[in-house]
Amino acid sequence: MDFIRVIDGGFSVIENLKVSGAREGKYGVSIIVCPNSNASAVFTSNKVVAAPVKYTKNVLKKGRISAVFINSGNANCFTGQQGLDDCETLVKLVADDLKLPEDEIAISSTGVIGRQMPIDIISKVAYESLSKLGNRPENSLAAAKAIMTTDTFPKECAVEVTLTTGETVRIAGITKGSGMIAPNMGTMLSFIVTDAVINSDEIKMALKKAADVSFNMIVVDGDESTNDTCLMMANGASGINVVNDGKLDSNFQDALNYLCIDLAKKMARDGEGATKFIEANVCGAKDDEDARLAAKSIISSSLFKSAVFGGDPNWGRIVSAIGYSGCDLNPDTVTISIADDTDDVDLVRKGEILAFDDTPYLKRAEKVMQSKNITVNIDMYLGDGEATAWGCDLTYDYVKINAEYTT
Amino acid sequence: MDFIRVIDGGFSVIENLKVSGAREGKYGVSIIVCPNSNASAVFTSNKVVAAPVKYTKNVLKKGRISAVFINSGNANCFTGQQGLDDCETLVKLVADDLKLPEDEIAISSTGVIGRQMPIDIISKVAYESLSKLGNRPENSLAAAKAIMTTDTFPKECAVEVTLTTGETVRIAGITKGSGMIAPNMGTMLSFIVTDAVINSDEIKMALKKAADVSFNMIVVDGDESTNDTCLMMANGASGINVVNDGKLDSNFQDALNYLCIDLAKKMARDGEGATKFIEANVCGAKDDEDARLAAKSIISSSLFKSAVFGGDPNWGRIVSAIGYSGCDLNPDTVTISIADDTDDVDLVRKGEILAFDDTPYLKRAEKVMQSKNITVNIDMYLGDGEATAWGCDLTYDYVKINAEYTT
Repeated sequence: MDFIRVIDGGFSVIENLKVSGAREGKYGVSIIVCPNSNASAVFTSNKVVAAPVKYTKNVLKKGRISAVFINSGNANCFTGQQGLDDCETLVKLVADDLKLPEDEIAISSTGVIGRQMPIDIISKVAYESLSKLGNRPENSLAAAKAIMTTDTFPKECAVEVTLTTGETVRIAGITKGSGMIAPNMGTMLSFIVTDAVINSDEIKMALKKAADVSFNMIVVDGDESTNDTCLMMANGASGINVVNDGKLDSNFQDALNYLCIDLAKKMARDGEGATKFIEANVCGAKDDEDARLAAKSIISSSLFKSAVFGGDPNWGRIVSAIGYSGCDLNPDTVTISIADDTDDVDLVRKGEILAFDDTPYLKRAEKVMQSKNITVNIDMYLGDGEATAWGCDLTYDYVKINAEYTT
Repeated sequence: MDFIRVIDGGFSVIENLKVSGAREGKYGVSIIVCPNSNASAVFTSNKVVAAPVKYTKNVLKKGRISAVFINSGNANCFTGQQGLDDCETLVKLVADDLKLPEDEIAISSTGVIGRQMPIDIISKVAYESLSKLGNRPENSLAAAKAIMTTDTFPKECAVEVTLTTGETVRIAGITKGSGMIAPNMGTMLSFIVTDAVINSDEIKMALKKAADVSFNMIVVDGDESTNDTCLMMANGASGINVVNDGKLDSNFQDALNYLCIDLAKKMARDGEGATKFIEANVCGAKDDEDARLAAKSIISSSLFKSAVFGGDPNWGRIVSAIGYSGCDLNPDTVTISIADDTDDVDLVRKGEILAFDDTPYLKRAEKVMQSKNITVNIDMYLGDGEATAWGCDLTYDYVKINAEYTT
């Protein structure tokens, strides 16, 4: 897709946008200022919904956002009326400081569930963050860092897309993982801004499509969070309309998908305790939905994830995971290979097992499994369905991180 | 339920029954001889089905079993026609030795997927097992041991039940786990024999009911196996009919449930790498199905299981797991407590958080979380639905065991 160009600088590539991040201990605050942007979002499907999710859903009814406040360290979930009051307090703090309308400020939180917000310290960090607003690459990086919880590296991406009309617009985003990542977006926060002209309904449709092939196709542990939010804003700074005759420019959608997949893969790679990155490609499934079931089941299997950690090419666990995913499978036609940057080894070819005991296939497979990036390719030979999912291995450190989280 | 009496001796409490077990390295063979028994079974829901499952489903069409052959060490799954041929070879070996009809012999396997059966060594262990058949407690124990894979202790249970008519019959069973245990029976093999008179259709109904409240309510890692089998036989040795006027004696059903729950709990307790046993009781749910969703979601959450390993009373993860289970939940009415043998602490009472920061509730909860047996009680205050699920913590050793399984 040569109409997509990845560029450095995160949010700094978008005009009329200021961002910042500040942190004190485990509490971080990022602020995104994008006056009069059209906006839409996708949220967690968990029935327990954090206060900022409720609050922001309400703000978004107008489809207009001028700033976003994000804090890490406390999820403000299961915090009752006090939690909603705290959202208002923090939004008011930002509105007063920036002279923006309160009802155009969104709020997101990530961290521990069920503790009231330490409003004093978060307010203090908020003022510090406000004092650092800017439009340089380091401002974007600071914002990406301040929303991190157990993430080990900040995650940002920016692209310039040449539309089918020949004009160019830009999209930039930051995200954080990194545990509780599951289909339907376990604890992830993503914020995306484009300089394109596009209204909130059109953003909603484009974002839903992009999320379905990116954030909804990564799994770290299968847990879904109460706070997940992917919020996209369009500040129109480029003056270029990406919807013509009611139809979204297909290059724009592709570029948005690309950006979301890039951010999603960074989250999977940074799964809690992860040492290896896994991509599962399924093709030849009965249909796309079957392919998605199979790809996600492989990525979700604790047994396979443990095998990857151990470097064990246990394709039996791949077959088993596909088998219980609910998708159609014919053991006599399925083909399974694993690959890294240097080799691609068939383990099972149209139902025939190649990798067992002392075969050269097994030796090569064992070598592939030592790599940091492992791709599993499945061809079902049943139809045209295809999908890709991403995840990571299950490690001692995943257990350690989550055994020690709150106490 | 004072009509159920737990008795020692496993299968030895049933008359006209011989069992045995033998092992050489990782290959074990157990044999159960129960001539002319009525029989039925429940099997894995995985779409990849091992050869012995296909074979035994066919045998069971007649509803009559005279012996069961079980091997551990190789699952005989994804082994094509050779796998089915190997089933026939082993069944013939048993039939010839015991002078029993081939078409009344069931076969089960557990172990690595996708390797052909090492038929020579398994035949050798089979002959050794056949030479040890007997009806003493040590024979039953040997059978329970020979089917073990990563299990750390053998699992058997026997009960005597006083029927509503005042007569008594007995039920005994053995089982093995202990990874890949999930709803719909990830790698478990269970074999149950009763001396009651009951036909195969009635066994089928009773066994399905019992499995739904026992084997289908335990989770170790959410993976489902290709080989799961729970096979129940009735040899009629007591001469006592448990079905009268077309109705199964309710005490018999309760006793069968009790036995299956006992075996299921032993499996959960012996989950791979487990250091703690978790029971999740949900009541007040909208209906039983909702309660099952919630209870299983708690037991399945990698985050909560890691928290239990770490002794962290992280009730936020309990709420989150219920929230994404799909069941109805009102955060303002839910009550959550955790208990061990000595204490029962409310963490959340009708939506009010009690256990936070330095409250006495949190201190007591932290103490409970140090116990080996932890019970989570949830009251939704929404309806009459209730369910119980069982599981274990997620530990370094789970990862270790499964990172090293085949290589």
